[in-house]
Amino acid sequence: MDDGNRRWLHKVVLKKSDALVIRMVVSTYQAASGAGAAAMEELELQTREVLDGKEPTCNIFNQQYAFNLFSHNAPVLSNGYNEEEMKLVKETKKIWNDNNVKVTATCIRVPVMRAHAESVNLQFDKPLDEETAREILNKAAGLVVIDDRASNRFPTPLGVSSKDDVAVGRIRQDLSQDGNYGLDIFVCGDQIRKGAALNAIQIAELLL
Amino acid sequence: MDDGNRRWLHKVVLKKSDALVIRMVVSTYQAASGAGAAAMEELELQTREVLDGKEPTCNIFNQQYAFNLFSHNAPVLSNGYNEEEMKLVKETKKIWNDNNVKVTATCIRVPVMRAHAESVNLQFDKPLDEETAREILNKAAGLVVIDDRASNRFPTPLGVSSKDDVAVGRIRQDLSQDGNYGLDIFVCGDQIRKGAALNAIQIAELLL
Repeated sequence: MDDGNRRWLHKVVLKKSDALVIRMVVSTYQAASGAGAAAMEELELQTREVLDGKEPTCNIFNQQYAFNLFSHNAPVLSNGYNEEEMKLVKETKKIWNDNNVKVTATCIRVPVMRAHAESVNLQFDKPLDEETAREILNKAAGLVVIDDRASNRFPTPLGVSSKDDVAVGRIRQDLSQDGNYGLDIFVCGDQIRKGAALNAIQIAELLL
Repeated sequence: MDDGNRRWLHKVVLKKSDALVIRMVVSTYQAASGAGAAAMEELELQTREVLDGKEPTCNIFNQQYAFNLFSHNAPVLSNGYNEEEMKLVKETKKIWNDNNVKVTATCIRVPVMRAHAESVNLQFDKPLDEETAREILNKAAGLVVIDDRASNRFPTPLGVSSKDDVAVGRIRQDLSQDGNYGLDIFVCGDQIRKGAALNAIQIAELLL
């Protein structure tokens, strides 16, 4: 999925603080658009059918997608991970240029039209407090921080659809790790824009 | 959310193997039903409106739910966790009768009518291999293992809707932990059934 999201997070979290990510646990919320226009059309068709009390048409996926969710449809490998998850594991190491980082992922399709979301748990090699992380993220190009706790406003797939920036929020110190070694964040990005053309441009700019 | 799920996982994972969970990272996929019948009706109404190109009616939630997802609507506390997440953290410790277990959670509402799902990453104090975990889960009452890698069939909210059993699948050794100390699993349960009356009966039976 959207290596654009990960590339930007990498840049901001890794390069602008002393702390390195040593382990990452990701759960995804992936939209129909990741499987192409026909999948988006099937989700719409199925939703109409289900609302009308009809059997849903299942051509692209082998089960009902409307008002449902399921493990990503990529083939499952002998280690129990599916190809999408292994892609996320391998691309993260490649993008971060770090073969030692530990990554696990669970990729799930949700009945959203476009833009993916990820719940990300990070473990660092040094303490990184929430305020420092937020400052770094706030200053990063290509990222927008949406993290309004009082009004419960955080990134959503709909909010980032057709936008260039990746949105990050729910930034908080991970209660399950002692000593500020962990953060939980929630990320949304429109992989149609961020995953392809725009990334190429932004990477090129970095090389200038 | 559904402490029924956690109670059953607790029983099978903790009591029937030597390994204890020492840390758990959870991301949830929570259905409209958790917010009551009116929320289910709003999701249906909004979906019809969006399909008809109309503005969605937002009475229960403060934003579009149809074909979207968002951070759980519970109030956010000063530590950045929302009340739903802290409930999950505290209930897990209580149900497991273990104040030392480390838990973090990110709770997300997805446009599913009923039955919640959870992506769960587990860390044990001793090695627990995937096959042993699967055997234990297979034998547990109140749980059904749906873990067919070849046909990509795993638990779904729709599959468990109106059913008593909690479904568990995607059981695999966590690649991000060395030495079989970790497992990733995916759980679905209809919290309307499992979270309330049925739990009371099953707990009573255990006491007999």
